[in-house]
Amino acid sequence: MTRWRVLIEYDGGPYVGWQRQKNGPSVQQAIEEAVFSFCGEHTRVYGAGRTDAGVHAFGQVAHIDIERPTTADTVRDAINAHLRDEPISVLEARIAPEGFHARISACERVYLYRILNRRPPPAVDLGRVWHIPWPLDADAMHHAAQRLIGTHDFTSFRATACQAKSPVKTLDVFDVRRAGDEIHFHARGRSFLHHQVRNIVGTLERVGAGRLTADDVSAALEARDRAAAGATAPPEGLALVSVGYPDD
Amino acid sequence: MTRWRVLIEYDGGPYVGWQRQKNGPSVQQAIEEAVFSFCGEHTRVYGAGRTDAGVHAFGQVAHIDIERPTTADTVRDAINAHLRDEPISVLEARIAPEGFHARISACERVYLYRILNRRPPPAVDLGRVWHIPWPLDADAMHHAAQRLIGTHDFTSFRATACQAKSPVKTLDVFDVRRAGDEIHFHARGRSFLHHQVRNIVGTLERVGAGRLTADDVSAALEARDRAAAGATAPPEGLALVSVGYPDD
Repeated sequence: MTRWRVLIEYDGGPYVGWQRQKNGPSVQQAIEEAVFSFCGEHTRVYGAGRTDAGVHAFGQVAHIDIERPTTADTVRDAINAHLRDEPISVLEARIAPEGFHARISACERVYLYRILNRRPPPAVDLGRVWHIPWPLDADAMHHAAQRLIGTHDFTSFRATACQAKSPVKTLDVFDVRRAGDEIHFHARGRSFLHHQVRNIVGTLERVGAGRLTADDVSAALEARDRAAAGATAPPEGLALVSVGYPDD
Repeated sequence: MTRWRVLIEYDGGPYVGWQRQKNGPSVQQAIEEAVFSFCGEHTRVYGAGRTDAGVHAFGQVAHIDIERPTTADTVRDAINAHLRDEPISVLEARIAPEGFHARISACERVYLYRILNRRPPPAVDLGRVWHIPWPLDADAMHHAAQRLIGTHDFTSFRATACQAKSPVKTLDVFDVRRAGDEIHFHARGRSFLHHQVRNIVGTLERVGAGRLTADDVSAALEARDRAAAGATAPPEGLALVSVGYPDD
Protein backbone atom coordinates (compact mmCIF):
# COMPACT_ATOMS: atom_id res chain seq x y z
CA MET A 1 0.00 0.00 0.00
CA THR A 2 1.23 3.46 -0.89
CA ARG A 3 -0.11 6.71 0.52
CA TRP A 4 -0.22 9.34 -2.24
CA ARG A 5 -0.30 13.07 -1.60
CA VAL A 6 -2.22 14.77 -4.39
CA LEU A 7 -2.67 18.43 -5.29
CA ILE A 8 -6.14 19.21 -6.67
CA GLU A 9 -7.78 22.10 -8.50
CA TYR A 10 -11.57 22.35 -8.85
CA ASP A 11 -14.46 24.60 -9.70
CA GLY A 12 -16.77 24.20 -6.71
CA GLY A 13 -19.85 25.43 -8.59
CA PRO A 14 -21.43 22.05 -9.44
CA TYR A 15 -20.73 20.42 -6.06
CA VAL A 16 -22.30 20.27 -2.60
CA GLY A 17 -18.75 20.85 -1.34
CA TRP A 18 -15.59 18.84 -0.84
CA GLN A 19 -17.16 16.33 1.50
CA ARG A 20 -19.46 13.44 0.56
CA GLN A 21 -23.09 14.25 1.35
CA LYS A 22 -26.40 12.63 0.60
CA ASN A 23 -27.91 15.69 -1.09
CA GLY A 24 -25.71 15.85 -4.20
CA PRO A 25 -22.36 15.28 -5.88
CA SER A 26 -19.20 16.15 -3.94
CA VAL A 27 -15.61 16.62 -5.05
CA GLN A 28 -14.50 13.84 -2.70
CA GLN A 29 -16.98 11.38 -4.20
CA ALA A 30 -15.97 12.27 -7.78
CA ILE A 31 -12.30 11.59 -6.98
CA GLU A 32 -13.08 8.39 -5.06
CA GLU A 33 -15.08 7.13 -8.05
CA ALA A 34 -12.22 8.04 -10.41
CA VAL A 35 -9.77 6.12 -8.20
CA PHE A 36 -12.11 3.12 -8.27
CA SER A 37 -12.41 3.29 -12.07
CA PHE A 38 -8.62 3.44 -12.31
CA CYS A 39 -7.58 0.65 -9.93
CA GLY A 40 -10.75 -1.08 -8.71
CA GLU A 41 -10.12 -0.06 -5.10
CA HIS A 42 -12.71 1.53 -2.80
CA THR A 43 -10.54 4.15 -1.13
CA ARG A 44 -11.31 7.12 1.07
CA VAL A 45 -9.86 10.40 -0.20
CA TYR A 46 -8.96 12.67 2.75
CA GLY A 47 -8.80 16.40 2.01
CA ALA A 48 -6.94 19.11 3.94
CA GLY A 49 -9.86 21.53 3.86
CA ARG A 50 -13.59 20.81 3.71
CA THR A 51 -14.59 23.48 1.25
CA ASP A 52 -18.30 24.36 1.24
CA ALA A 53 -20.70 24.11 -1.71
CA GLY A 54 -19.62 26.56 -4.42
CA VAL A 55 -16.16 27.20 -2.95
CA HIS A 56 -13.27 26.62 -5.39
CA ALA A 57 -9.75 25.27 -4.94
CA PHE A 58 -6.54 25.98 -6.79
CA GLY A 59 -4.48 23.87 -4.42
CA GLN A 60 -6.49 21.47 -2.25
CA VAL A 61 -4.32 18.67 -0.86
CA ALA A 62 -5.59 15.15 -0.22
CA HIS A 63 -4.12 11.78 0.59
CA ILE A 64 -5.18 8.53 -1.03
CA ASP A 65 -4.09 5.01 -0.07
CA ILE A 66 -3.73 2.72 -3.08
CA GLU A 67 -2.79 -0.96 -2.87
CA ARG A 68 -1.83 -1.45 -6.51
CA PRO A 69 1.83 -0.61 -7.25
CA THR A 70 1.95 2.37 -9.61
CA THR A 71 3.80 5.62 -10.34
CA ALA A 72 3.06 9.22 -9.42
CA ASP A 73 2.48 10.18 -13.06
CA THR A 74 0.05 7.29 -13.47
CA VAL A 75 -1.91 8.26 -10.34
CA ARG A 76 -2.25 11.85 -11.63
CA ASP A 77 -3.05 10.96 -15.24
CA ALA A 78 -5.36 8.02 -14.49
CA ILE A 79 -7.49 9.96 -12.01
CA ASN A 80 -7.70 12.87 -14.47
CA ALA A 81 -8.67 10.51 -17.29
CA HIS A 82 -11.60 9.24 -15.22
CA LEU A 83 -12.58 12.79 -14.15
CA ARG A 84 -12.88 13.85 -17.78
CA ASP A 85 -16.34 15.40 -17.50
CA GLU A 86 -15.79 17.03 -14.10
CA PRO A 87 -14.16 20.45 -13.46
CA ILE A 88 -11.65 18.74 -11.15
CA SER A 89 -7.99 18.23 -12.02
CA VAL A 90 -5.17 16.46 -10.17
CA LEU A 91 -2.18 18.76 -10.65
CA GLU A 92 0.39 16.55 -8.98
CA ALA A 93 0.76 13.24 -7.15
CA ARG A 94 3.70 12.21 -5.01
CA ILE A 95 4.45 9.59 -2.39
CA ALA A 96 3.45 10.98 1.03
CA PRO A 97 6.07 10.96 3.79
CA GLU A 98 5.71 8.51 6.70
CA GLY A 99 2.70 9.38 8.89
CA PHE A 100 1.35 12.02 6.48
CA HIS A 101 -2.33 12.99 6.87
CA ALA A 102 -3.64 15.68 4.51
CA ARG A 103 -5.78 17.37 7.17
CA ILE A 104 -3.97 16.64 10.43
CA SER A 105 -0.43 17.27 9.15
CA ALA A 106 -1.31 20.60 7.51
CA CYS A 107 0.31 23.62 9.20
CA GLU A 108 -0.88 26.37 6.87
CA ARG A 109 -3.91 27.16 4.74
CA VAL A 110 -4.14 30.06 2.29
CA TYR A 111 -7.46 31.36 0.95
CA LEU A 112 -8.34 33.98 -1.65
CA TYR A 113 -11.69 35.78 -1.60
CA ARG A 114 -12.68 37.90 -4.63
CA ILE A 115 -15.23 40.71 -4.68
CA LEU A 116 -16.18 42.20 -8.05
CA ASN A 117 -16.76 45.83 -7.12
CA ARG A 118 -18.49 47.51 -10.04
CA ARG A 119 -22.04 48.44 -10.87
CA PRO A 120 -22.57 45.92 -13.73
CA PRO A 121 -22.93 42.27 -12.64
CA PRO A 122 -20.26 39.65 -13.43
CA ALA A 123 -20.46 37.75 -16.73
CA VAL A 124 -17.19 35.90 -17.48
CA ASP A 125 -16.56 35.53 -13.72
CA LEU A 126 -20.11 34.62 -12.75
CA GLY A 127 -19.85 32.05 -9.96
CA ARG A 128 -16.26 33.07 -9.11
CA VAL A 129 -16.81 36.42 -7.39
CA TRP A 130 -19.12 38.20 -4.95
CA HIS A 131 -20.72 41.11 -6.74
CA ILE A 132 -20.90 44.34 -4.74
CA PRO A 133 -22.27 47.20 -6.88
CA TRP A 134 -21.66 50.04 -4.39
CA PRO A 135 -18.17 51.54 -3.92
CA LEU A 136 -15.96 49.89 -1.31
CA ASP A 137 -12.92 51.41 0.41
CA ALA A 138 -10.30 48.65 0.23
CA ASP A 139 -7.83 50.54 2.43
CA ALA A 140 -10.41 50.87 5.21
CA MET A 141 -11.17 47.16 4.92
CA HIS A 142 -7.48 46.27 5.10
CA HIS A 143 -6.98 48.53 8.10
CA ALA A 144 -9.92 46.96 9.95
CA ALA A 145 -8.82 43.42 9.02
CA GLN A 146 -5.56 43.95 10.90
CA ARG A 147 -7.57 44.04 14.16
CA LEU A 148 -8.17 40.32 13.66
CA ILE A 149 -4.54 39.27 13.19
CA GLY A 150 -3.11 37.10 15.96
CA THR A 151 -4.57 34.52 18.33
CA HIS A 152 -8.18 35.19 19.30
CA ASP A 153 -11.45 33.57 20.24
CA PHE A 154 -13.19 33.83 16.85
CA THR A 155 -16.67 32.85 18.09
CA SER A 156 -18.13 35.96 16.42
CA PHE A 157 -16.86 34.78 13.02
CA ARG A 158 -17.68 31.09 13.41
CA ALA A 159 -20.61 29.28 11.81
CA THR A 160 -23.11 28.17 14.43
CA ALA A 161 -22.78 24.66 12.99
CA CYS A 162 -18.97 24.69 13.38
CA GLN A 163 -17.72 21.49 15.01
CA ALA A 164 -14.23 22.64 16.00
CA LYS A 165 -13.42 21.92 19.67
CA SER A 166 -12.11 25.42 20.30
CA PRO A 167 -13.04 28.80 18.81
CA VAL A 168 -9.47 30.01 19.38
CA LYS A 169 -7.46 30.32 16.17
CA THR A 170 -4.38 32.20 15.04
CA LEU A 171 -4.84 34.38 11.98
CA ASP A 172 -1.45 35.15 10.43
CA VAL A 173 -2.45 37.25 7.40
CA PHE A 174 -5.63 38.96 6.25
CA ASP A 175 -4.67 41.37 3.48
CA VAL A 176 -7.21 43.37 1.48
CA ARG A 177 -6.11 44.89 -1.81
CA ARG A 178 -7.87 46.49 -4.76
CA ALA A 179 -6.99 44.98 -8.15
CA GLY A 180 -8.81 47.02 -10.80
CA ASP A 181 -12.54 46.30 -10.49
CA GLU A 182 -11.87 43.59 -7.92
CA ILE A 183 -11.02 43.50 -4.24
CA HIS A 184 -8.87 40.55 -3.18
CA PHE A 185 -8.69 39.19 0.36
CA HIS A 186 -5.65 37.02 1.12
CA ALA A 187 -6.03 34.97 4.32
CA ARG A 188 -3.41 32.72 5.87
CA GLY A 189 -3.40 30.68 9.07
CA ARG A 190 -2.75 27.21 10.43
CA SER A 191 -6.46 26.37 10.32
CA PHE A 192 -9.79 28.14 10.13
CA LEU A 193 -13.19 27.75 11.74
CA HIS A 194 -16.21 26.89 9.59
CA HIS A 195 -17.18 30.01 7.54
CA GLN A 196 -14.45 32.03 9.28
CA VAL A 197 -13.07 33.63 6.10
CA ARG A 198 -16.54 34.27 4.66
CA ASN A 199 -17.80 35.76 7.95
CA ILE A 200 -14.78 38.07 8.14
CA VAL A 201 -15.26 39.13 4.50
CA GLY A 202 -18.96 39.76 5.13
CA THR A 203 -18.07 41.99 8.07
CA LEU A 204 -15.29 43.83 6.22
CA GLU A 205 -17.66 44.55 3.33
CA ARG A 206 -19.68 46.65 5.80
CA VAL A 207 -16.48 48.48 6.70
CA GLY A 208 -15.71 49.08 3.01
CA ALA A 209 -19.22 50.47 2.53
CA GLY A 210 -18.70 52.89 5.43
CA ARG A 211 -21.25 51.25 7.72
CA LEU A 212 -18.77 49.86 10.25
CA THR A 213 -15.40 51.08 11.53
CA ALA A 214 -12.25 49.23 12.52
CA ASP A 215 -13.29 49.78 16.14
CA ASP A 216 -16.60 48.07 15.39
CA VAL A 217 -14.68 45.06 14.07
CA SER A 218 -12.62 44.95 17.28
CA ALA A 219 -15.81 45.15 19.32
CA ALA A 220 -17.42 42.37 17.26
CA LEU A 221 -14.38 40.13 17.89
CA GLU A 222 -14.47 40.85 21.61
CA ALA A 223 -18.23 40.19 21.85
CA ARG A 224 -17.67 36.46 21.14
CA ASP A 225 -21.16 36.40 19.65
CA ARG A 226 -21.92 35.49 16.03
CA ALA A 227 -24.70 38.12 15.99
CA ALA A 228 -22.13 40.86 16.67
CA ALA A 229 -20.39 40.39 13.31
CA GLY A 230 -21.60 40.81 9.71
CA ALA A 231 -23.36 38.36 7.41
CA THR A 232 -21.62 35.42 5.77
CA ALA A 233 -20.19 36.34 2.37
CA PRO A 234 -21.38 33.99 -0.42
CA PRO A 235 -19.29 30.90 -1.20
CA GLU A 236 -18.54 31.58 -4.88
CA GLY A 237 -15.96 34.29 -4.12
CA LEU A 238 -13.82 31.92 -2.05
CA ALA A 239 -10.98 29.64 -3.17
CA LEU A 240 -8.58 27.44 -1.20
CA VAL A 241 -5.26 28.52 -2.73
CA SER A 242 -2.76 26.27 -0.99
CA VAL A 243 -2.07 24.03 1.99
CA GLY A 244 1.33 23.91 3.67
CA TYR A 245 3.07 21.07 5.53
CA PRO A 246 6.12 21.05 7.81
CA ASP A 247 8.15 19.04 5.29
CA ASP A 248 7.63 21.52 2.42
CA MET B 1 -34.77 57.89 -31.18
CA THR B 2 -31.36 57.62 -29.57
CA ARG B 3 -28.55 55.38 -30.77
CA TRP B 4 -26.75 53.89 -27.74
CA ARG B 5 -23.21 52.55 -27.86
CA VAL B 6 -22.90 49.74 -25.31
CA LEU B 7 -19.86 47.83 -24.02
CA ILE B 8 -20.63 44.18 -23.29
CA GLU B 9 -18.92 41.32 -21.44
CA TYR B 10 -20.05 37.71 -21.85
CA ASP B 11 -19.15 34.10 -21.31
CA GLY B 12 -19.69 32.55 -24.75
CA GLY B 13 -20.01 29.02 -23.40
CA PRO B 14 -23.83 28.69 -23.35
CA TYR B 15 -24.40 30.42 -26.72
CA VAL B 16 -24.36 29.53 -30.42
CA GLY B 17 -22.34 32.73 -30.84
CA TRP B 18 -23.00 36.45 -30.95
CA GLN B 19 -25.37 36.29 -33.89
CA ARG B 20 -29.00 35.13 -33.85
CA GLN B 21 -29.34 31.60 -35.23
CA LYS B 22 -32.11 29.06 -35.42
CA ASN B 23 -30.15 26.30 -33.66
CA GLY B 24 -29.89 27.81 -30.19
CA PRO B 25 -29.61 30.87 -27.96
CA SER B 26 -27.36 33.71 -29.07
CA VAL B 27 -25.92 36.67 -27.18
CA GLN B 28 -27.60 39.05 -29.61
CA GLN B 29 -31.01 37.50 -29.01
CA ALA B 30 -30.59 37.58 -25.22
CA ILE B 31 -29.79 41.30 -25.33
CA GLU B 32 -32.60 42.06 -27.80
CA GLU B 33 -35.06 40.29 -25.49
CA ALA B 34 -33.74 42.24 -22.50
CA VAL B 35 -34.20 45.51 -24.40
CA PHE B 36 -37.76 44.47 -25.24
CA SER B 37 -38.48 43.60 -21.60
CA PHE B 38 -37.11 46.98 -20.57
CA CYS B 39 -38.82 49.31 -23.05
CA GLY B 40 -41.22 47.20 -25.13
CA GLU B 41 -39.34 47.92 -28.35
CA HIS B 42 -38.28 45.28 -30.88
CA THR B 43 -34.80 46.52 -31.70
CA ARG B 44 -31.90 45.02 -33.56
CA VAL B 45 -28.64 44.96 -31.56
CA TYR B 46 -25.65 45.35 -33.90
CA GLY B 47 -22.32 44.01 -32.62
CA ALA B 48 -18.82 44.98 -33.73
CA GLY B 49 -17.63 41.39 -33.94
CA ARG B 50 -19.59 38.23 -34.65
CA THR B 51 -17.98 35.95 -32.11
CA ASP B 52 -18.44 32.21 -32.73
CA ALA B 53 -20.08 29.69 -30.41
CA GLY B 54 -18.03 29.37 -27.23
CA VAL B 55 -15.97 32.53 -27.84
CA HIS B 56 -16.01 35.04 -24.97
CA ALA B 57 -15.95 38.84 -24.85
CA PHE B 58 -14.58 41.26 -22.29
CA GLY B 59 -15.32 44.28 -24.47
CA GLN B 60 -17.76 43.63 -27.32
CA VAL B 61 -19.31 46.87 -28.59
CA ALA B 62 -22.84 47.10 -29.99
CA HIS B 63 -25.26 49.82 -30.94
CA ILE B 64 -28.93 49.83 -30.04
CA ASP B 65 -31.57 52.27 -31.25
CA ILE B 66 -34.19 53.04 -28.57
CA GLU B 67 -37.18 55.31 -29.10
CA ARG B 68 -38.05 55.86 -25.45
CA PRO B 69 -36.18 58.80 -23.88
CA THR B 70 -33.91 57.46 -21.15
CA THR B 71 -30.44 57.85 -19.61
CA ALA B 72 -27.19 55.96 -20.14
CA ASP B 73 -27.27 54.55 -16.59
CA THR B 74 -30.83 53.34 -17.10
CA VAL B 75 -29.98 51.63 -20.40
CA ARG B 76 -27.07 49.80 -18.72
CA ASP B 77 -28.90 48.89 -15.50
CA ALA B 78 -32.23 47.97 -17.11
CA ILE B 79 -30.66 45.63 -19.69
CA ASN B 80 -28.58 44.03 -16.94
CA ALA B 81 -31.65 43.61 -14.75
CA HIS B 82 -33.40 41.69 -17.53
CA LEU B 83 -30.25 39.61 -18.27
CA ARG B 84 -30.13 38.43 -14.67
CA ASP B 85 -29.84 34.71 -15.45
CA GLU B 86 -27.46 35.10 -18.38
CA PRO B 87 -23.63 35.41 -18.18
CA ILE B 88 -23.88 38.66 -20.15
CA SER B 89 -23.26 42.10 -18.63
CA VAL B 90 -23.54 45.60 -20.08
CA LEU B 91 -20.51 47.40 -18.66
CA GLU B 92 -21.33 50.82 -20.08
CA ALA B 93 -23.84 52.67 -22.24
CA ARG B 94 -23.33 56.05 -23.85
CA ILE B 95 -24.94 58.07 -26.61
CA ALA B 96 -23.32 57.13 -29.93
CA PRO B 97 -21.87 59.92 -32.06
CA GLU B 98 -23.64 60.91 -35.30
CA GLY B 99 -23.41 58.14 -37.91
CA PHE B 100 -21.97 55.58 -35.50
CA HIS B 101 -22.27 51.90 -36.47
CA ALA B 102 -20.72 49.37 -34.07
CA ARG B 103 -19.36 47.14 -36.85
CA ILE B 104 -18.73 49.53 -39.73
CA SER B 105 -17.22 52.37 -37.69
CA ALA B 106 -14.79 50.09 -35.82
CA CYS B 107 -11.13 50.68 -36.71
CA GLU B 108 -9.48 48.23 -34.32
CA ARG B 109 -10.23 44.85 -32.76
CA VAL B 110 -8.15 43.23 -30.04
CA TYR B 111 -8.37 39.50 -29.24
CA LEU B 112 -6.79 37.34 -26.54
CA TYR B 113 -6.29 33.62 -27.02
CA ARG B 114 -5.29 31.49 -23.99
CA ILE B 115 -3.60 28.09 -24.08
CA LEU B 116 -3.27 26.19 -20.80
CA ASN B 117 0.06 24.43 -21.31
CA ARG B 118 0.41 21.79 -18.59
CA ARG B 119 -0.14 18.07 -18.39
CA PRO B 120 -3.23 18.13 -16.08
CA PRO B 121 -6.44 19.33 -17.74
CA PRO B 122 -8.11 22.63 -16.78
CA ALA B 123 -10.60 22.70 -13.90
CA VAL B 124 -11.33 26.27 -12.75
CA ASP B 125 -10.67 27.52 -16.32
CA LEU B 126 -12.53 24.76 -18.12
CA GLY B 127 -14.21 26.34 -21.14
CA ARG B 128 -11.88 29.37 -21.07
CA VAL B 129 -8.63 27.87 -22.38
CA TRP B 130 -7.30 25.43 -24.98
CA HIS B 131 -5.55 22.62 -23.15
CA ILE B 132 -2.25 21.52 -24.70
CA PRO B 133 -0.53 18.91 -22.49
CA TRP B 134 2.79 18.73 -24.39
CA PRO B 135 5.46 21.44 -23.92
CA LEU B 136 5.24 24.46 -26.22
CA ASP B 137 8.02 26.91 -27.05
CA ALA B 138 6.36 30.33 -26.72
CA ASP B 139 9.40 32.20 -28.07
CA ALA B 140 9.38 30.09 -31.26
CA MET B 141 5.64 30.76 -31.63
CA HIS B 142 6.15 34.49 -31.18
CA HIS B 143 9.02 34.53 -33.67
CA ALA B 144 6.93 32.67 -36.28
CA ALA B 145 3.88 34.88 -35.64
CA GLN B 146 5.87 37.95 -36.73
CA ARG B 147 5.93 36.52 -40.27
CA LEU B 148 2.20 37.29 -40.44
CA ILE B 149 2.39 40.94 -39.39
CA GLY B 150 1.46 43.46 -42.07
CA THR B 151 -0.92 43.42 -45.04
CA HIS B 152 -1.33 39.99 -46.63
CA ASP B 153 -3.74 37.73 -48.45
CA PHE B 154 -4.78 35.55 -45.48
CA THR B 155 -6.62 32.90 -47.55
CA SER B 156 -4.62 30.16 -45.79
CA PHE B 157 -5.96 31.30 -42.41
CA ARG B 158 -9.54 31.98 -43.45
CA ALA B 159 -12.54 29.72 -42.77
CA THR B 160 -13.84 28.23 -45.98
CA ALA B 161 -17.27 29.62 -45.02
CA CYS B 162 -15.86 33.16 -44.61
CA GLN B 163 -18.04 35.74 -46.37
CA ALA B 164 -15.60 38.66 -46.46
CA LYS B 165 -15.23 40.18 -49.93
CA SER B 166 -11.44 40.17 -49.80
CA PRO B 167 -8.96 37.85 -48.05
CA VAL B 168 -6.51 40.76 -47.71
CA LYS B 169 -6.21 42.02 -44.13
CA THR B 170 -3.66 44.00 -42.13
CA LEU B 171 -2.45 42.33 -38.95
CA ASP B 172 -0.90 44.92 -36.64
CA VAL B 173 0.07 42.81 -33.63
CA PHE B 174 0.32 39.09 -32.92
CA ASP B 175 2.31 38.66 -29.72
CA VAL B 176 2.84 35.32 -28.02
CA ARG B 177 3.96 35.30 -24.38
CA ARG B 178 4.21 32.67 -21.68
CA ALA B 179 2.41 33.56 -18.41
CA GLY B 180 3.10 30.76 -15.93
CA ASP B 181 1.27 27.65 -17.11
CA GLU B 182 -0.47 29.63 -19.83
CA ILE B 183 0.49 30.97 -23.24
CA HIS B 184 -1.27 34.19 -24.23
CA PHE B 185 -1.73 35.37 -27.82
CA HIS B 186 -2.53 39.07 -28.24
CA ALA B 187 -3.88 39.94 -31.69
CA ARG B 188 -4.72 43.40 -32.98
CA GLY B 189 -5.93 44.61 -36.36
CA ARG B 190 -8.62 46.69 -38.04
CA SER B 191 -10.68 43.60 -38.80
CA PHE B 192 -10.24 39.85 -39.06
CA LEU B 193 -11.43 37.10 -41.39
CA HIS B 194 -13.69 34.35 -40.03
CA HIS B 195 -11.58 32.01 -37.82
CA GLN B 196 -8.44 34.01 -38.64
CA VAL B 197 -7.15 34.23 -35.06
CA ARG B 198 -8.04 30.60 -34.29
CA ASN B 199 -6.43 29.35 -37.53
CA ILE B 200 -3.24 31.30 -36.77
CA VAL B 201 -3.18 29.94 -33.20
CA GLY B 202 -3.74 26.40 -34.49
CA THR B 203 -0.78 26.80 -36.84
CA LEU B 204 1.47 28.41 -34.20
CA GLU B 205 0.72 25.55 -31.80
CA ARG B 206 2.46 23.26 -34.32
CA VAL B 207 5.43 25.65 -34.27
CA GLY B 208 5.48 25.60 -30.46
CA ALA B 209 5.45 21.80 -30.54
CA GLY B 210 8.44 21.79 -32.90
CA ARG B 211 6.51 20.36 -35.86
CA LEU B 212 6.62 23.52 -38.00
CA THR B 213 9.18 26.34 -38.37
CA ALA B 214 8.75 30.07 -38.94
CA ASP B 215 9.64 29.41 -42.59
CA ASP B 216 6.78 26.90 -42.77
CA VAL B 217 4.42 29.62 -41.52
CA SER B 218 5.67 32.00 -44.22
CA ALA B 219 5.21 29.26 -46.83
CA ALA B 220 1.68 28.55 -45.54
CA LEU B 221 0.78 32.26 -45.86
CA GLU B 222 2.19 32.43 -49.39
CA ALA B 223 0.34 29.25 -50.48
CA ARG B 224 -3.03 31.06 -50.22
CA ASP B 225 -4.57 27.67 -49.49
CA ARG B 226 -6.42 26.80 -46.25
CA ALA B 227 -4.97 23.28 -46.41
CA ALA B 228 -1.43 24.71 -46.18
CA ALA B 229 -1.97 26.00 -42.62
CA GLY B 230 -2.73 24.23 -39.34
CA ALA B 231 -6.05 23.20 -37.80
CA THR B 232 -8.50 25.67 -36.25
CA ALA B 233 -7.86 26.16 -32.53
CA PRO B 234 -11.00 25.56 -30.41
CA PRO B 235 -13.28 28.54 -29.66
CA GLU B 236 -13.14 28.43 -25.85
CA GLY B 237 -9.62 29.90 -25.68
CA LEU B 238 -10.65 33.04 -27.56
CA ALA B 239 -12.00 36.33 -26.22
CA LEU B 240 -12.78 39.64 -27.92
CA VAL B 241 -10.98 42.05 -25.60
CA SER B 242 -11.83 45.45 -27.08
CA VAL B 243 -13.04 47.33 -30.14
CA GLY B 244 -11.63 50.71 -31.09
CA TYR B 245 -13.26 53.64 -32.91
CA PRO B 246 -11.79 56.76 -34.51
CA ASP B 247 -13.46 59.02 -31.92
CA ASP B 248 -11.94 57.22 -28.91
